[in-house]
This record gives sequence, C-alpha cells and structure tokens, in this order.
Amino acid sequence: MFSVTVRDHIMIAHSFRGEVFGPAQRLHGATFLVDATFRREELDDDNIVVDIGLATQELGAITSELNFRNLDNEPDFAGINTSTEFLAKVVADRLAERVHLGALGEGARGLTGISVTLHESHVAWASYERAL
Amino acid sequence: MFSVTVRDHIMIAHSFRGEVFGPAQRLHGATFLVDATFRREELDDDNIVVDIGLATQELGAITSELNFRNLDNEPDFAGINTSTEFLAKVVADRLAERVHLGALGEGARGLTGISVTLHESHVAWASYERAL
Amino acid sequence: MFSVTVRDHIMIAHSFRGEVFGPAQRLHGATFLVDATFRREELDDDNIVVDIGLATQELGAITSELNFRNLDNEPDFAGINTSTEFLAKVVADRLAERVHLGALGEGARGLTGISVTLHESHVAWASYERAL
Amino acid sequence: MFSVTVRDHIMIAHSFRGEVFGPAQRLHGATFLVDATFRREELDDDNIVVDIGLATQELGAITSELNFRNLDNEPDFAGINTSTEFLAKVVADRLAERVHLGALGEGARGLTGISVTLHESHVAWASYERAL
Amino acid sequence: MFSVTVRDHIMIAHSFRGEVFGPAQRLHGATFLVDATFRREELDDDNIVVDIGLATQELGAITSELNFRNLDNEPDFAGINTSTEFLAKVVADRLAERVHLGALGEGARGLTGISVTLHESHVAWASYERAL
Amino acid sequence: MFSVTVRDHIMIAHSFRGEVFGPAQRLHGATFLVDATFRREELDDDNIVVDIGLATQELGAITSELNFRNLDNEPDFAGINTSTEFLAKVVADRLAERVHLGALGEGARGLTGISVTLHESHVAWASYERAL
Repeated sequence: MFSVTVRDHIMIAHSFRGEVFGPAQRLHGATFLVDATFRREELDDDNIVVDIGLATQELGAITSELNFRNLDNEPDFAGINTSTEFLAKVVADRLAERVHLGALGEGARGLTGISVTLHESHVAWASYERAL
Repeated sequence: MFSVTVRDHIMIAHSFRGEVFGPAQRLHGATFLVDATFRREELDDDNIVVDIGLATQELGAITSELNFRNLDNEPDFAGINTSTEFLAKVVADRLAERVHLGALGEGARGLTGISVTLHESHVAWASYERAL
Repeated sequence: MFSVTVRDHIMIAHSFRGEVFGPAQRLHGATFLVDATFRREELDDDNIVVDIGLATQELGAITSELNFRNLDNEPDFAGINTSTEFLAKVVADRLAERVHLGALGEGARGLTGISVTLHESHVAWASYERAL
Repeated sequence: MFSVTVRDHIMIAHSFRGEVFGPAQRLHGATFLVDATFRREELDDDNIVVDIGLATQELGAITSELNFRNLDNEPDFAGINTSTEFLAKVVADRLAERVHLGALGEGARGLTGISVTLHESHVAWASYERAL
Repeated sequence: MFSVTVRDHIMIAHSFRGEVFGPAQRLHGATFLVDATFRREELDDDNIVVDIGLATQELGAITSELNFRNLDNEPDFAGINTSTEFLAKVVADRLAERVHLGALGEGARGLTGISVTLHESHVAWASYERAL
Repeated sequence: MFSVTVRDHIMIAHSFRGEVFGPAQRLHGATFLVDATFRREELDDDNIVVDIGLATQELGAITSELNFRNLDNEPDFAGINTSTEFLAKVVADRLAERVHLGALGEGARGLTGISVTLHESHVAWASYERAL
C-alpha cells in the first residue's frame, strides 16, 4: 500500500455548543495544519500515487473555502459543532468529491482511500479516514 | 473512521537486562512524548470522538503515575524490561481500563480502539494499538 | 549567557484593520504556540536559570487570560491590531511584570531578559525580546 | 499490534520524466527523512519489537547505498522515476530482504510488517507498507 | 526588538569541491527549509514588523530562482561551494535588496536586520544574519 | 554573522537536590536533544563555517561521554544539580576545548562563538552561549 501526504493550513474562528466544551464554548479560534493523505495499492504509469501539484492545488482550493472565516457564520455548518474531527471529515469528503470529478487527474482514479489529519496544536490533533 | 490524539510526556529512569540492549543496560533515562489516540466509527452527539478535556486529564493521571520515577524500582515492572514499546502498551491498557470505568465520559463508550505512541527521541518511537 | 524556554499555547479569535491584512481583515482565529525564554548571565544557587515550575505556572496564568477568547472584544486590545508580534510583546511584558513582583521566585530577580515567540502556523512566527 | 520506528536521512539528486512533474523534470535534489517502522503482534523474549541497534544499523546500510548520489545514474533505477513513494518501497523491500537474511537478529523473524515513510519537505511525505 | 519569520523551501542538486566534504563531493541534493526573519525596533503603523503577505511573496520569488535546479550549473554560483551557510547569505542578501527596492512595502523601510536559516535535514541547519 | 548547527541526543538518569525541583528530586531521567551551534564572521576557504563532519564527530564524542549514564554517579558532577541549562554549558565548554585543541580542523580556529541548546521535552529547553 502506497500513500502520499501534503500539508496546508487554515486559520479560523468558531465556538462550540455543549457543556463538554468548557471554555471553548466561547468564540475563539484555531490554526489547523491540514494533512491530506492519498492511498492506492499500486503506483500509476508515472510511478506516483497522485500528481502532487494537483493534490496541493485542490487541497488549497478546499482550505481557501474555510480559511480566514468565522465558521459559526458559514451556512454549511449552521447548528453544527465544527470540531477538529468533524472538519477533518469535511476536508476529506470535499477532496473525495474532487477526485471523483477528475480534478486530481485521470491517474487519481486509481486512488482507494483518503485520510485527513488536522493538528489544532502541538499537543492535539484529529483524523478522518475513508475509502474512495 | 475518526480519531483524536492528545500528547503528554514523562521523564523516567530505567535500565535494561539483556545483551541486545548494549550500553542501555546501564541505568539511564528518557523523556517520552506520549501520544494517546482514540478511535471510533461515528462521532457522538456533541460531534466529537471523545471529550478532549477528560482525555487529557485521564492521560495525565496515567503519566503522573510514571513520571519522575526510576521504573526499575516500580513494583508493577519488577523483572520487566520497560522498553518503549512495552510502555506504550502499559499506557494504552490503563487508558482502556479508564474508558471502561466511565472516566472519559458516557460518550467514550462508543470508542472502538486506542493506540499509544511513545517518542523516545527525534529519531526513534514505538506504538501499541488495541481494540476497546 | 544562559536561557530556559517553556512552551504553552492559546486558541483565540480576532480580526485586523488595514488593507495590508487582506482576508485576515475578516474575523478568523489562530492557535499560537507561546515560547517564553528567560535569560541570565550566571545560574542561581540551585544551578538553574529560573524555577521551571513557577515559569510554567506564571506563563499559564498569562495565557489563560487570553485563551479561548475573541481578542476583538477584550478591553485591553480595543482598537489595536493584535498581530502575532504585538501579542508576543503582551506576553513578554506581562511576564516581566510578574518577575518584578516576585511571582517567579526570589532567584528570578537575577534574570536579565525575556523573549517570547508566538508560532501562528508551521510556516510563520514572531518574537519580541526585552530586558528586565 | 506493536511497532518501532527509527529515523535516518539521505541527500540525493534526481530528475523526473513526464509532464506531470513540471519543473521537477529538471535535475534537482532532496533531503529525505527516512522513517522505517517494524510491526509485530507480540513482543519477543527481550520485551521488544526488534533490536533497535540492529534496525538502525541495517537502515543505515541501506541509506548509505543511496546517500550523496545522483539517482539518475544508479543502474538500479535506470529509466525509473525515483518518486518519494517509489523510494519508500525501495527502502522497505531492502529492509525486508535483510530481515529475511537474519541481519536484524533471530528475534526479528517474528516481525509481520514493515512500513517506510520518506519526508521530502515539511509539507510533503510518502509511505509504503508491506507484509513480511 | 521585534521579529517575524516566514518559512519556504527549495529542492536543489549540487556538489562540493574539497576533501573536507567527503562523499558530498559527489553530485547529490537537498531540501532546504528556508526561514527568513525580519527585525525592527518598533512596530509600524499597522502594528506589524512587515507585511507578511509581501514577505512571503518576495521570499517565494527568491526561492523560485533557486528551486528545482542543479546549482552547479547556475552562472551565479560558478566555481563556488554552495554550502548551506553560503546559501543562507544568498537568500538574505537578495531579500535585503528587495527591501531596499521597496518590494516589501514602505513600512519595511523600518526594518533593521534580516537573518535566514536553511535546514538541510532534521539534524543540521545554518544561518546568516545581517543588518539592513 | 554565520552559524552552523548539528543535532545529537543523549538519554540519561539524574536527580536534583532542592525543594524548587519538586518531584524531580526523585531519580528520573531525560532524553536531551543536543543542538550545537558554531559561529563566525566570515566563511573559511571552503566556504563553510566548520567541517560539519568533524563537528558531528566531536559532538558525538562528547555526548557519548554522557549518554546512557546516571549523572548522579559521574565524578565530574558530584554534588552538582545537572540541570538542562548546566548541561548545555558542559557540552559547550567541552566543544570549545576541542576547538582549541584543533579537533574540529584548522579552519575551526576562525570560530568566534559556540552555543548549545538542550531540549528536555517538546515544551522545555535551555541554552548556553559563549565566546571562543
């Protein structure tokens, strides 16, 4: 099994609802390092997992939809706790959609899975892993 | 599959028995960065994997049982080589026990697995992964 | 010259005023890793720069004043761009005040300087350095 | 499941063939951090996954075959795009061969898998995982 | 004293002349993480050290002049050992020139110093520091 | 001003005397990442700060004097609190001695300063800086 990972980051504001979140119920923010991993069983004809240039570009398109925003005001996330683990799924699902649309190139159709890890600090991070 | 990881650290002394350990047979020590990962298939009602506050607190309770100690003198480890990989299992098993006791909250009963990684330096680390 | 550094972190929301900030004029947020460095010429009677326990505790008291907040609503920062470099100075000045008040112990009176570095991401950070 | 990872690095020159590589078609180079992970179900009689001294030594033997070279001129890679993901497989396969030859010790015969991650920068890395 | 640092990276091939370089006399390569630090005594009217957008853009312009190249073939470096420390000076001097030309904005005219650190691996890096 | 830094590490046991150290008065241990920085005004005839091979070798000779030991039993440190900051000075002074003896090569006689940073964890480190 092969994989390739590229890293980007976003800087967002948000708040959480629920006692479990303690002081994070207040409006605050986070820098999320966003690591997107693409998996496949065999390499393609160019001997790669995915065109790393396209992977970086498409991940960047997704992070720019989220970056420098207050997620509490985003219609997509109305009434939703935008936890680190939830946002990992958002990024992974949007990447999967772009793979299916061909945005990562024809070779990317051989990908079998995506995982996304969001680092919220040097001491906490979360991941979501899915098939393609 | 979702996961959340929190990091803590311990600073311990110990020695190893067996020629395979070379100079590490002498009493020495280590800082272990301790990364505890919690896994589950679906997020809970708060849209999270686990209460990260409780996860941090319970991991801290476990690391404080080990921290600033000479493991050679700990009754729990009498006659045992406290290798990095073994200690990863110790932390993972103790976390699993606390999950089963409800210390990480009712939501944590939906967790399906735990893995623990101990970094002994910038060039070596070890992990243990188990089901819940 | 000796120094000791301890790391903490904060997760805040804020926005900037001024065209130079581009999309960061929108309400967004950041995780800042906060590295506080204490300097002195000679070690104290305990052979240390500063009581690392007190240094961590007092840095933690300062970061908790900022953590999980929207800095745009903090009276201390009314009308101020809370840039990474500015916040580095805020933390350094507050630490200096605590040193002068004796909160870091009598030994800390031998400190000659403080610097604070705030990492806003894996690709950008800022520092402020001052005498004591 | 247990694992142990050791890190080494190589500094190589190479070029790629194929439009997908853009400017990386030119002769350039990379520092690859090389992380080799060894897996097994149960620890051996010394309470370890593998003799970390031998693991480091054998990984070092493999990296020294690649280090400080122009991979375009290596007969083993003639006509091959030496992508990060491909090189991860090269290192993993060579490690597997050494395990089978006994170079990592008799205990290492209990290993069940190897994975190798090559970091080409702080924002991109690739992995290959295989059974033993 | 305030500073702001931004990180970029380059992937280059080169070789060295001189016995002191051992196997690095062969054509090989490196990924250099490039950290550019800008210093000044007081913040500008926007409460910043430098427009981080322009700093990133101009550093990127300089790194793109070096990236994905064999430095042995660059006319600027003919007959020169492109050591990590030398390349740190190249980047710092080119940044200084751009500051003087106004490419980092009018506010950047208040900068008093630049330092550049190039990381060639996780275990070796080099810096050059200069006034403006 | 130029500098070059190389990283090594040690794993030691020790204990501290004095109430300020709290639980660290017990025998415990640490992994110290050891970063040794060499400074000079101008590069030497090979266009470098120091022979990085010799620098690594001599740093390694010094760390091997400390590695895998209980520092409480080392005659050199009898009755001394081997704090992180103190050990940074030990390493720096031993490196300086080797520079003066010519062990880092004739070119190293142009070095003007050394600093050593010891990282005791991901959240604490200490440095010592001296002239040559």
